[in-house]
Amino acid sequence: MILGVDIGGTSIKAGVVDQDGTVLKMDRVKTPKQQEEFVHALIKLINGLWTEYSGQINAIGIGCPGPLDAKNGMILKTPNIPQMTDLKTPLQNNFDVPIFFDNDANCFTLAEALYGAGKDHAVVLGITLGTGFGAGLVINDIIYSGRGNALELAHTVIDKNETVVFPNLVRGCVEQYVSTAGVLFSAKKYDLDVAEPIDVFQLAEVKNDKALAVWKEFGWNLGIVLTNAVCAFDPDVIVIGGQMNQAWQYFEEAMQESLEKNCIHPTPLIVRATVKEAGIVGASLLIR
Amino acid sequence: MILGVDIGGTSIKAGVVDQDGTVLKMDRVKTPKQQEEFVHALIKLINGLWTEYSGQINAIGIGCPGPLDAKNGMILKTPNIPQMTDLKTPLQNNFDVPIFFDNDANCFTLAEALYGAGKDHAVVLGITLGTGFGAGLVINDIIYSGRGNALELAHTVIDKNETVVFPNLVRGCVEQYVSTAGVLFSAKKYDLDVAEPIDVFQLAEVKNDKALAVWKEFGWNLGIVLTNAVCAFDPDVIVIGGQMNQAWQYFEEAMQESLEKNCIHPTPLIVRATVKEAGIVGASLLIR
Repeated sequence: MILGVDIGGTSIKAGVVDQDGTVLKMDRVKTPKQQEEFVHALIKLINGLWTEYSGQINAIGIGCPGPLDAKNGMILKTPNIPQMTDLKTPLQNNFDVPIFFDNDANCFTLAEALYGAGKDHAVVLGITLGTGFGAGLVINDIIYSGRGNALELAHTVIDKNETVVFPNLVRGCVEQYVSTAGVLFSAKKYDLDVAEPIDVFQLAEVKNDKALAVWKEFGWNLGIVLTNAVCAFDPDVIVIGGQMNQAWQYFEEAMQESLEKNCIHPTPLIVRATVKEAGIVGASLLIR
Repeated sequence: MILGVDIGGTSIKAGVVDQDGTVLKMDRVKTPKQQEEFVHALIKLINGLWTEYSGQINAIGIGCPGPLDAKNGMILKTPNIPQMTDLKTPLQNNFDVPIFFDNDANCFTLAEALYGAGKDHAVVLGITLGTGFGAGLVINDIIYSGRGNALELAHTVIDKNETVVFPNLVRGCVEQYVSTAGVLFSAKKYDLDVAEPIDVFQLAEVKNDKALAVWKEFGWNLGIVLTNAVCAFDPDVIVIGGQMNQAWQYFEEAMQESLEKNCIHPTPLIVRATVKEAGIVGASLLIR
């Protein structure tokens, strides 16, 4: 069995995964903001399952927001997670099994490619619509990493003349539009008084026009991101996951319209993610 | 020996290439605009070298502007080249050796990866600055194609709110800026009365301020394209070729400034192409 860990900005989740990709047991903890507490909480979380499945864990796979130095277990500068110059050593000191790291969106895509909506497709592009924008590419069941941090589509520019600037973001990059911050900015433009995208989702559920307009804008921008991804990677399938995925019915139409208008290439299959806890499952698959 | 063919909007070039990637003999013909003449001219061009190197040609490789159906030798809709539903059969009827097709920018990148500026690098991104914008990705000496037409970066959107529309182009796509048409449009904005980018180049040579500004704008936009490519593919090296490459000294600084401003990822090595007739050499390498 493999222990898969999914490090997120809100919580760290760990699970014991069998060789069929089934999560047998799961646990989670709130993500500490300080480096030392972060490491301590992570070790404690893993140790609980490690002890319970004593002697049965053959490896640990860890997915975390990129960019990172996967080989050395370094988490480079990324919002919401403490920067770590060496996460591997403290873990290795506690757990004497091979430990692997990769980007969380890569883990998500790997899980979907092997067990989910991307199964039986050669080239799978995975997209996670979360706090940020994540993407991964799996070619013949292998993550494409380039020098180590490919598929950072969040930071690609889709509006080079954008006048609004978001903190910590390149002007006009994907994450300025297709992210929690993007949805909230859009909501503000429409005079919606909300704190989180879930609020905009709930307003859409009761047919609030402004909320529906926000998701439409989100879908249109997502369509442009997908256009660029189709032109760049020409994948067999695009699998979309992440918590904002729940607003699918409110952004799908605008997303498709945007693709029809902007993408001159034949669009591939575009489907919703199907693997439960794909982050944990995908992390467990890093050992292959 | 292999016969490599480089089909362009202006001319079709063919060459006999030995196993070291050296072009032993070359010939060319102006690209006919009509389908029948196009096929006839192509066969005649190949036949000249085929006859001269009688019995020594083991395969034919053909590079042409994408998108195309490489397996069936179909040239899909592309400006400057007649659309072909089947280029393979007429060629195969005349030349009884294996015939391979691929995108011209892929051929360029393959040649640079094996013999040129991309040699000894695992992931090579090639970019051709010609009439249009071409790109190719070679991973461990193999062209990455996705479903068949990946790396069509020309059609990726970098200004989703662009108000100017170019014929046959998606609004705000790369080819609107980094192409012959883009340079001429930019020149017009600066009140430069020119017919071709070469004119803008020659004006830059005599320190014409407006011409220098055009190349600066070109470099800045190219820097955004490179930013997006670095984030997406994270290559070890980017090799830049194509005829507009000759204005390198006039756009390089702005390109680097743009990368520094827009690209949050470490930029890879960015170098100029070195292989002579890379299109022909790359086409000859399609047999591998």
